[in-house]
Amino acid sequence: MKNLLANISNPSDLRKLNSSELPELAKDLRAFIIDIVATKEGHLGASLGVVELTIALHYLFDTPNDLLVWDVGHQAYGHKILTDRKSVFHTNRQFNGIAGFPSRQESNFDTFGVGHSSTSISAALGMAIASNLKGETEKHHIAVIGDASIASGMAFEALNHAGVSKANILIILNDNAIGIDPSVGALKEYLTRVKSDKKLAAQNNIIKALNFDYSGPVDGHNLPKLLSELERLKKVKGPKFLHVITTKGKGLQKAEEDQITYHAPGKFDKISGERLKKEKSLYTKYQDVFGKTVLELAKKNKNIVAITPAMLTGSSLKLMMQEIPNRTFDVGIAEQHAVTLAAGMATQGLVPFCNIYSTFLQRAYDQVIHDVALQNLPVIFCLDRAGLVGEDGATHHGVFDIAYLRCIPNLIIFAPRNEIELRNILYTAQLGLEKPIAIRYPRGYGKNKDWQQPFSKIEIGKAVTLKQGDEIAILSIGTISDSVNQAIDLAQNKKSLAHFDMRFVKPLDEELLHHIFSNFSKIITVEDGTITGGFGSSIVEYATKNNFKNDIQIVGVPDEFITHGSILELQKEVGLDSNSLAELFSQT
Amino acid sequence: MKNLLANISNPSDLRKLNSSELPELAKDLRAFIIDIVATKEGHLGASLGVVELTIALHYLFDTPNDLLVWDVGHQAYGHKILTDRKSVFHTNRQFNGIAGFPSRQESNFDTFGVGHSSTSISAALGMAIASNLKGETEKHHIAVIGDASIASGMAFEALNHAGVSKANILIILNDNAIGIDPSVGALKEYLTRVKSDKKLAAQNNIIKALNFDYSGPVDGHNLPKLLSELERLKKVKGPKFLHVITTKGKGLQKAEEDQITYHAPGKFDKISGERLKKEKSLYTKYQDVFGKTVLELAKKNKNIVAITPAMLTGSSLKLMMQEIPNRTFDVGIAEQHAVTLAAGMATQGLVPFCNIYSTFLQRAYDQVIHDVALQNLPVIFCLDRAGLVGEDGATHHGVFDIAYLRCIPNLIIFAPRNEIELRNILYTAQLGLEKPIAIRYPRGYGKNKDWQQPFSKIEIGKAVTLKQGDEIAILSIGTISDSVNQAIDLAQNKKSLAHFDMRFVKPLDEELLHHIFSNFSKIITVEDGTITGGFGSSIVEYATKNNFKNDIQIVGVPDEFITHGSILELQKEVGLDSNSLAELFSQT
Repeated sequence: MKNLLANISNPSDLRKLNSSELPELAKDLRAFIIDIVATKEGHLGASLGVVELTIALHYLFDTPNDLLVWDVGHQAYGHKILTDRKSVFHTNRQFNGIAGFPSRQESNFDTFGVGHSSTSISAALGMAIASNLKGETEKHHIAVIGDASIASGMAFEALNHAGVSKANILIILNDNAIGIDPSVGALKEYLTRVKSDKKLAAQNNIIKALNFDYSGPVDGHNLPKLLSELERLKKVKGPKFLHVITTKGKGLQKAEEDQITYHAPGKFDKISGERLKKEKSLYTKYQDVFGKTVLELAKKNKNIVAITPAMLTGSSLKLMMQEIPNRTFDVGIAEQHAVTLAAGMATQGLVPFCNIYSTFLQRAYDQVIHDVALQNLPVIFCLDRAGLVGEDGATHHGVFDIAYLRCIPNLIIFAPRNEIELRNILYTAQLGLEKPIAIRYPRGYGKNKDWQQPFSKIEIGKAVTLKQGDEIAILSIGTISDSVNQAIDLAQNKKSLAHFDMRFVKPLDEELLHHIFSNFSKIITVEDGTITGGFGSSIVEYATKNNFKNDIQIVGVPDEFITHGSILELQKEVGLDSNSLAELFSQT
Repeated sequence: MKNLLANISNPSDLRKLNSSELPELAKDLRAFIIDIVATKEGHLGASLGVVELTIALHYLFDTPNDLLVWDVGHQAYGHKILTDRKSVFHTNRQFNGIAGFPSRQESNFDTFGVGHSSTSISAALGMAIASNLKGETEKHHIAVIGDASIASGMAFEALNHAGVSKANILIILNDNAIGIDPSVGALKEYLTRVKSDKKLAAQNNIIKALNFDYSGPVDGHNLPKLLSELERLKKVKGPKFLHVITTKGKGLQKAEEDQITYHAPGKFDKISGERLKKEKSLYTKYQDVFGKTVLELAKKNKNIVAITPAMLTGSSLKLMMQEIPNRTFDVGIAEQHAVTLAAGMATQGLVPFCNIYSTFLQRAYDQVIHDVALQNLPVIFCLDRAGLVGEDGATHHGVFDIAYLRCIPNLIIFAPRNEIELRNILYTAQLGLEKPIAIRYPRGYGKNKDWQQPFSKIEIGKAVTLKQGDEIAILSIGTISDSVNQAIDLAQNKKSLAHFDMRFVKPLDEELLHHIFSNFSKIITVEDGTITGGFGSSIVEYATKNNFKNDIQIVGVPDEFITHGSILELQKEVGLDSNSLAELFSQT
């Protein structure tokens, strides 16, 4: 059996094929993706779903002169493979390998870097308007966006603008009824009705109401139909919208059947699709410590509600959803709404746990300030995936949160150093703080088997001493304290090192700080967030205000965007692993 | 002629009236608003437009037990007057007076504090869900939102959720076809069609498609019709949507005719509506320095485009819109889209000036990080209304921007100390920086008559010495340098004060800082932003990194939300006026 993909490096090669050969190429491309993701891991389901669409787009349009923007980018593996990166695709998401998302640095076929959702229409519209102004009227601009992403507010803002523009933009809705978890919301229900009722699609149409030339729904796995519809749309000027129906995980039965798991399944058998058994960790993921604890608390405290913007699985709030669905809210990719919904709930005496990945809380920054903190409403923000997150890379690291939250009045900021601390701060927060709190914790596993201890209240603004010492005080925040502990053990240092877990970035434990600054000649702060404006910065602000002149060294993430790779590789890169810290402590 | 309003302090009094008396009350209420705003200033047009709606809602619903949320709050004057604040309404927006927007601190009729747009549906939905959980099934939850605000992404996110909820929520669209400037976008065009085509409203309906019980359009100035429709909707359970057509400025002819000017007209004659002539300032507003300069530059540089999210007038981009409409984009209240649209344009070699008020850039924080800075795209952010903004108060002060922007890699941050510096940095930025830049400047007038000087390029990262000295170095950023200059003159100080305008928060002028820290015993930083994490914080980070032990004092906005009042009153309150600074310098 010939392998068509073997002879294709980029779209120029692809365009030499006869269109009748494309279904065969689709098989090859799907097999190639499965083959590599089965052993190298990555986002599987989304890319399998758009194999035909990817081929059709690069076949018919003159990429990279025509500009193609993938929303989020989970689905862009086929695109990467067909655009000069087949031979390096096995390095996907690895340190020094290609990125898991489209990236302008990597290829001129990647017209816009993505990772966070719902940006593609805005970006493509900007490009299309630029082409208009430059007189490039034949150029095509295409945004491919999923049904979960298009329901996010930012996408609506872009549709609202595109609909009244003269821009030559084609928006392709990749409708598979699922994001990472199944899509939710009124728009999703509407799209579902459209699929079963062609008359609705033809007449009572939201997208048409917004001035688009709407067509579809089209079967996204039927290449001839896709090609003919795209061929027709190429000739239509102005804003166009093609509704394509696809199946996430298409072509791998297990992935089609369990779309949530196979979004990013880890290693699996490429024939059967069966996931390879990982050695079961002795430990628990932080997300599960959160998910289990909130459920435990919610069973006792009837005022507790929990909110996630489309991360039911990732946040482990699915545990609470299973048992207490009426108090668990998946609002879709809608961080802004999630935060202000929580604020509204808090005004009525509910106790909202609003769980948002650190990097995605950037989407709701104004709502945290304006709707929660300004009104001093006791919303409990749970920021999962804080710090370096690993393979998802620059778009997803949760390294800015301390810096951008620290300037907000009224807000308490806490980072647990372990599972027990996370558990206890969740307990403490729901007792009623009369203020908002942000709790940041990392991706991945903890290190304590016996974290399910009886609850104990944490005093707000109180740090803890982890190790006594005389000369140098190390102040850490959050789970990086583990690396600090190890580094202290490893350090070749005659000086006596003390270690304090400050716990609260805000309010600082000023009493303990006074003691530390009065008794130690040198202070080293360690955090897994940005050095600029972060936790260390708060310590030097304290020192300045109180006129302490001790030497201070701030250790953290430098002022640059950090690439992808394992968390440990990235920690080494920025000097936050225990060996680097030990070396630093030794030199002090 | 009897004055019905005279006997009404709150909705309990209102409900004693016969419904046939309400049109008469509407006249009284309108006259009362006009009477006071004519001399005390404030937001006029929006409140005049909803006089009948305000009366109808408080008459029929059991406020404050039924929960009423006003979006933005420009339109809530009638609401305030009818809810116990008639006697203090003349203190509106004044220091120690009532706030210009609804505020939970002020009244339990103000169920949710507002100021920024498009939050009302999320908040009301949160309240409605809370009532459901508490078994309060008879309670009503009402969000009143304008047609400009509902087109913002956040509102769509909330609609998308509300439509699939069982919440007892009534959304009232106050459709007057204008925000501060006329509304734009595909949704607005759709709503315009609905108004003229009842069949479209009945059948091909976006809101119905999102699962709402839609009714309207209803004439919002016809009290009997409003009352009967609201009476009907009171009995409908679940998500409901009432489309009300109003006229902004209703009842004052001038305000109806010139809705943009009469959004907030300043002082005017209450009979004729004629605006009172202000003494013409000798100086130019910063927004006009921006607007005029960008137009001047755009005439020469064909790659320049300008974007505003619904602040065409407020940003003075209307000047460019008038002369170069094809390169000027008002995208509506859509800060997220505005930023990523600019990023898309920048990928194609355009030079986008993206003008967003400092406080509203909080809405697009993720897009600044993820879509612009991460890709190092040379978008030029122009942050108007930075610092304390005065009467709009806590929701609108632009005091967080330095802190939240400073942690973003690749981003240049500049604050001009005067009009000429603003002009020159705009010139410099469009020459091509190969990086994004944020330029922050204040509300109000400059102090130089002759600011239209020939352009001069500003060296990135270069500070300037404003006054030589020997002992104490004052480092300021932005226009607060004026107050510092005055304070230096006023200061009773034997010590020799030097004054440096740092200009760039990022990158810092490290060469000059090295000189300063090597030659001055004490450093005082002065900024009109938050002390926590701001400009002063960047200076102490510099000192820490370079092991300087000088005394440093950070002067700026304290870690609390600042109230409303004139800018000078607020500066005095926080110690940033020239007298307070002089006192501080004298004590040093």
